[in-house]
Amino acid sequence: MRFTVREMRDFSHDHSVLALNTATLGHNVPGAGVGWSPERTIDACAERGINGLVFWRREIEGKAAAIGARAREAGVRVVGLCRAPFLVGPLAARHREDVADDFRKAIDETAELGADVLTIVTGGVQVGTKGVQESLKAVAGCIAGVLPYAASSGVRLALEPLHPMYGGDRSCLMTTRDALDICDFINADNLGVAIDVYHVWWDTDLPRQLARAGRRIFGFHLCDWLAHTSDFLLDRGMMGDGVADLRGIRSAVEAAGYQGFCEVEIFSAANWWKREPEEVLDIMIDRFRSVC
Amino acid sequence: MRFTVREMRDFSHDHSVLALNTATLGHNVPGAGVGWSPERTIDACAERGINGLVFWRREIEGKAAAIGARAREAGVRVVGLCRAPFLVGPLAARHREDVADDFRKAIDETAELGADVLTIVTGGVQVGTKGVQESLKAVAGCIAGVLPYAASSGVRLALEPLHPMYGGDRSCLMTTRDALDICDFINADNLGVAIDVYHVWWDTDLPRQLARAGRRIFGFHLCDWLAHTSDFLLDRGMMGDGVADLRGIRSAVEAAGYQGFCEVEIFSAANWWKREPEEVLDIMIDRFRSVC
Repeated sequence: MRFTVREMRDFSHDHSVLALNTATLGHNVPGAGVGWSPERTIDACAERGINGLVFWRREIEGKAAAIGARAREAGVRVVGLCRAPFLVGPLAARHREDVADDFRKAIDETAELGADVLTIVTGGVQVGTKGVQESLKAVAGCIAGVLPYAASSGVRLALEPLHPMYGGDRSCLMTTRDALDICDFINADNLGVAIDVYHVWWDTDLPRQLARAGRRIFGFHLCDWLAHTSDFLLDRGMMGDGVADLRGIRSAVEAAGYQGFCEVEIFSAANWWKREPEEVLDIMIDRFRSVC
Repeated sequence: MRFTVREMRDFSHDHSVLALNTATLGHNVPGAGVGWSPERTIDACAERGINGLVFWRREIEGKAAAIGARAREAGVRVVGLCRAPFLVGPLAARHREDVADDFRKAIDETAELGADVLTIVTGGVQVGTKGVQESLKAVAGCIAGVLPYAASSGVRLALEPLHPMYGGDRSCLMTTRDALDICDFINADNLGVAIDVYHVWWDTDLPRQLARAGRRIFGFHLCDWLAHTSDFLLDRGMMGDGVADLRGIRSAVEAAGYQGFCEVEIFSAANWWKREPEEVLDIMIDRFRSVC
């Protein structure tokens, strides 16, 4: 199935819906590299008209409400929080209660931040099982159990399918189709999907699934897939440097009804994380306008 | 969609359809590591009742007919040849004629070996394009052009979808569905697919696609996906050491009509390639009987 390029939002002179995922600056926690504080990141975004921000939990721990308020004062919206704990698989907490507790804590932090969405990365194949079916069932059960709490906190949950190379340990959920199957099964207004071009660019079934998703697309993430990618985690490309059909995917995402922020999330130890954050932000804006 | 475990061939005391892809022994070319010659590999297989062998082109170059005869004398069938040249993408030859020439040469070698099947790995996204659609079209055109030559040589071509982590440079063909779409489009008796558990284990659409494939499954490849895989190319697992549902997949492959060899292909620089080849073969037989 091909993408049909429909009428799209024109970003060529407008980056008002551009959002920064702080991972793009190398996880900006003081002490972990040359990173910026959340406050400095907020200011740098505000200065450049980057109106959205997505934090990681370790950056805002214990001060979510204050950082949320700081962002609002600066005119920057906290679009989302990365992320709920792994729910299943070898990297998840061993006890189900611990997973659920931490999941609720992440929901609390999302609410305190005033963020729109909490992203869910499911975790990989359950230890002792083969294939993904048992794990996907466990994921659905876990989410169904926590959803009412999220709803009462005003938090939406976005299931993010990850690239199939993460299937073993990080995500038994690897396609938009599987994510929507879980959404269909649970059927709750505050459960949807996050579409990250890095994870789904290869999927020729994507146009069909995005149309099926409709208003359940809660987030749209940008970067690029480098033709000769060299690392499982930390070699994402800046938009335009890779082979993903960014405009085709965005067209389908928007045709499905999504009109929200476009969040740039680039893990890049060998390239972008070595540059000055100001330079990264400026290039990000330029690429967003020119190739996305 | 789940796998339904149907009646399957019982391998618990029988490895008569086990085939060795020489990659499992570290590409057994003299000079390239501690590798064995094709002749020595043939003998080692014959001694163990491993009745099938798959070579790589560089191992048999200039002596395909002799090696084919040698294998037949030893009672070992040459199941396939790896592989046609990359047809598209950054690793393909620059000129289309060179690709076609080398493709025909690979077909000749397959015929000289007396092998059943030539495997096709498509190559990645065409340079200068985005997404996979243009590349898949080019692949289909290239295969359609060479198919009559293959047919006149008595050679069957097996399109092998690779794992989506190879999409950039090695394979724009990443799902069984896309492979079958090309087969449907071209519609020739000597064009089918090769199903490698390493590349497709994650795909919840696989049972449906295998049923659709039917008799067009020309090859079935075994190894395993390690939960914490650490290298894009050279960290495949021995059957049983990973998370792929090997038995579920084989069940669906056989239900579709496939009753041929099961070919073990393990690229493993840090583990299996460091062991004595005899040990690898013995463990391979044991795992084939116990977990596949």
